[in-house]
Amino acid sequence: MAYYSQFSKESLDALRLELEQQLKRYESENHDLNMARGKPCSDQLDLSNALLDIKIPLEKNPNDDFRNYGTLDGIPQTKQLFAELLEVDPSEIIIGGNSSLNMMYSTLAKVMLFGTSEEETPWCHIKDLKFLCPVPGYDRHFAICQKFGMEMINIDMTDEGPDMDQVEALVANDPTIKGIWCVPKFSNPTGITYSDRVVERLAKMKTAATDFRIIWDNAYVVHELYNDTEPLMNIMEACKAAGTQDRPYLFTSMSKVTFAGASVAAMAASKNNIDFILGIMGVQTIGSDKINQYRHSAFLKDLQGVKNHMKKHAQIIKPKFDLVLKILDEKLTDRQIATWSVPRGGYFINLDVMDGCAKEVVEMAESVGLKLTPAGATYPYGKDPFDRNIRIAPTFPPMDELEKAIEILCVCIELVSIHKYIERLDHQEEMAQ
Amino acid sequence: MAYYSQFSKESLDALRLELEQQLKRYESENHDLNMARGKPCSDQLDLSNALLDIKIPLEKNPNDDFRNYGTLDGIPQTKQLFAELLEVDPSEIIIGGNSSLNMMYSTLAKVMLFGTSEEETPWCHIKDLKFLCPVPGYDRHFAICQKFGMEMINIDMTDEGPDMDQVEALVANDPTIKGIWCVPKFSNPTGITYSDRVVERLAKMKTAATDFRIIWDNAYVVHELYNDTEPLMNIMEACKAAGTQDRPYLFTSMSKVTFAGASVAAMAASKNNIDFILGIMGVQTIGSDKINQYRHSAFLKDLQGVKNHMKKHAQIIKPKFDLVLKILDEKLTDRQIATWSVPRGGYFINLDVMDGCAKEVVEMAESVGLKLTPAGATYPYGKDPFDRNIRIAPTFPPMDELEKAIEILCVCIELVSIHKYIERLDHQEEMAQ
Repeated sequence: MAYYSQFSKESLDALRLELEQQLKRYESENHDLNMARGKPCSDQLDLSNALLDIKIPLEKNPNDDFRNYGTLDGIPQTKQLFAELLEVDPSEIIIGGNSSLNMMYSTLAKVMLFGTSEEETPWCHIKDLKFLCPVPGYDRHFAICQKFGMEMINIDMTDEGPDMDQVEALVANDPTIKGIWCVPKFSNPTGITYSDRVVERLAKMKTAATDFRIIWDNAYVVHELYNDTEPLMNIMEACKAAGTQDRPYLFTSMSKVTFAGASVAAMAASKNNIDFILGIMGVQTIGSDKINQYRHSAFLKDLQGVKNHMKKHAQIIKPKFDLVLKILDEKLTDRQIATWSVPRGGYFINLDVMDGCAKEVVEMAESVGLKLTPAGATYPYGKDPFDRNIRIAPTFPPMDELEKAIEILCVCIELVSIHKYIERLDHQEEMAQ
Repeated sequence: MAYYSQFSKESLDALRLELEQQLKRYESENHDLNMARGKPCSDQLDLSNALLDIKIPLEKNPNDDFRNYGTLDGIPQTKQLFAELLEVDPSEIIIGGNSSLNMMYSTLAKVMLFGTSEEETPWCHIKDLKFLCPVPGYDRHFAICQKFGMEMINIDMTDEGPDMDQVEALVANDPTIKGIWCVPKFSNPTGITYSDRVVERLAKMKTAATDFRIIWDNAYVVHELYNDTEPLMNIMEACKAAGTQDRPYLFTSMSKVTFAGASVAAMAASKNNIDFILGIMGVQTIGSDKINQYRHSAFLKDLQGVKNHMKKHAQIIKPKFDLVLKILDEKLTDRQIATWSVPRGGYFINLDVMDGCAKEVVEMAESVGLKLTPAGATYPYGKDPFDRNIRIAPTFPPMDELEKAIEILCVCIELVSIHKYIERLDHQEEMAQ
């Protein structure tokens, strides 16, 4: 039985007054707190400062000079590093610039203009394009679909990935459903990692569209908070086994490994896909920044080097996750007015408040100087059908600011929830009269 | 009167034998020479090695950290630098990644998918798209048009830019002609700089297409070989004066200032265009590599700093241009079988051999170990209607290799020309019988 339903209206009113006083005190403190985006903090960035001092070898052979033009798909050592990360062959890798988001947008823009292969219709010439969006999910994925005029279809997230019954039923019959967004490990924002069963079903499912694509945004591939590794089935191998190897486009980047704004991104795909994409990329550019590629390879060395480096990130950010979870637990568990994820990696804590309360909570927090990810942002078109989901990004603020931020957030959640309960009581009274 | 036409068939045959012997000697020397692309040489790249040692300020304010996410359009100091280079306001600048080619492709890809503005039709939904291509021109421009399925229309280059009578007549009546490629300064490959009159006519001309765009690829904006500056009228000001400020998209990069493969590119455009493009870019990426932007700004400082730096480039590459021109003059001027440009900047010498000979010359050179830009590459679809244009890129090879390369090239030109003359004589004999 819910905590507040045991309270009389008078008790609720007293509590409301007390919380409103608290909110006013926060307001008078003139806070400027920000938990809106999944950004690394300065201490995390400092972990990679040695990247700036990497000596670039000035090759004797001028045809092999990192400073000059050339090498469309990336230098061998960086392809090797990303191949280890994404568990594919280096020949299945293309290195991009500093942003995997840019690679995802650009890959889909290519598919819009040129199709997924010579044989397929460019998506810009297909009416009623649709894309599956597991929700809650990543707002920047949804923004790309929206920009390309694709209708987005919500798919419920379960604790082992997207609800595959929904997915299979939809893709089997509708050839205008062209793909699905996936953040398969430490999903943004729910934090879950896809089960083997889900990965296999994604690989094996029958799709009415012959050019169906899985956008496999493995942004948090090595972003563990704990010492043990959360296993994720290899989608490329699963698809090869199922004969659907052209289905997945894999992406990742070093943005949350080294420097968020100045790292190296990569994609992986089947040989068919790589050849087709490189055919267009060869018209688009002569190649990405090889000096930055070299810096990253020299600094991180190999998968084990990346994993060792990520342990240092975990040492900095796990205490932040722990602090948020501790305060949420202390302030809200008994109240039974919110539930939240306890992620083992990634960048977010996923918070569900009472239905119909998320927007009000976020607005109230902002009114006293705490900026959160906008309510609804985790849903296509910014529309959370339940108005309950809030994404918490604990990495960027320093510990003292984070503590204050979560305290404020909890007060806002309590207050909005109490308003809701009081409304309910008022409504019951009205009905009884 | 042409030199070889004074020769008897016997004299020509003797000369042919001599040149063929020479060619065999070259073949036996196993050369591996490359003048195919406009690449800087190692000595040029070395001029910017200090860029690698620039200290990145680690900001006290974490919201203003070059290492972190953010700043879609570029950091202020780099926008300021490019604004000086392109003679526009910093608010009219967007900083990109390492490649202006990528920015051009990506801007046109946006126009294909979204149009030039909210009001205009996306070009991918327009049939019979056409683009004007001054010829000879830059093969990578033409490759973009071809990839996007645009019909390319050749426009003759004069010694002051594209033939504006042709351009004006075409654009006035055909709304499917959507734009024109321009390399306005030290044009690739002819080396000419557009006259004020041409720039003004481009700005003022009436276009049937309301979304006509000038792609102003100012790749060689500061790439002087001589101490004096070759003036170029400001297209943005000319267009503002003519009320066509949304017509030009300007591009340039530091690729041939610092590191060809790891520099910073930028575009400039009217406020309307910048707003529209940033609106799409905001979906595409969080921003380009700010660390590399900072390095460039700190290393080059301002326009004067860039100009000083370019003088060092000129010291390295002008002797290469001079050597090529000297050998061409010694070997070919008297023969009257070729003409070539004497550029005051840029990266190329434009060579015209006798009609119908370019392909054979390039193939012959390749057969003895000298790789040139493919004949025809300077024309849309790789088709030089006269088969006479060859682009010489003298910057990359060391002086000794360059000398050998041009000697080989001259022998090939002589030999192919003599074949042509002998053919003519044979033909005349046949006709006389």
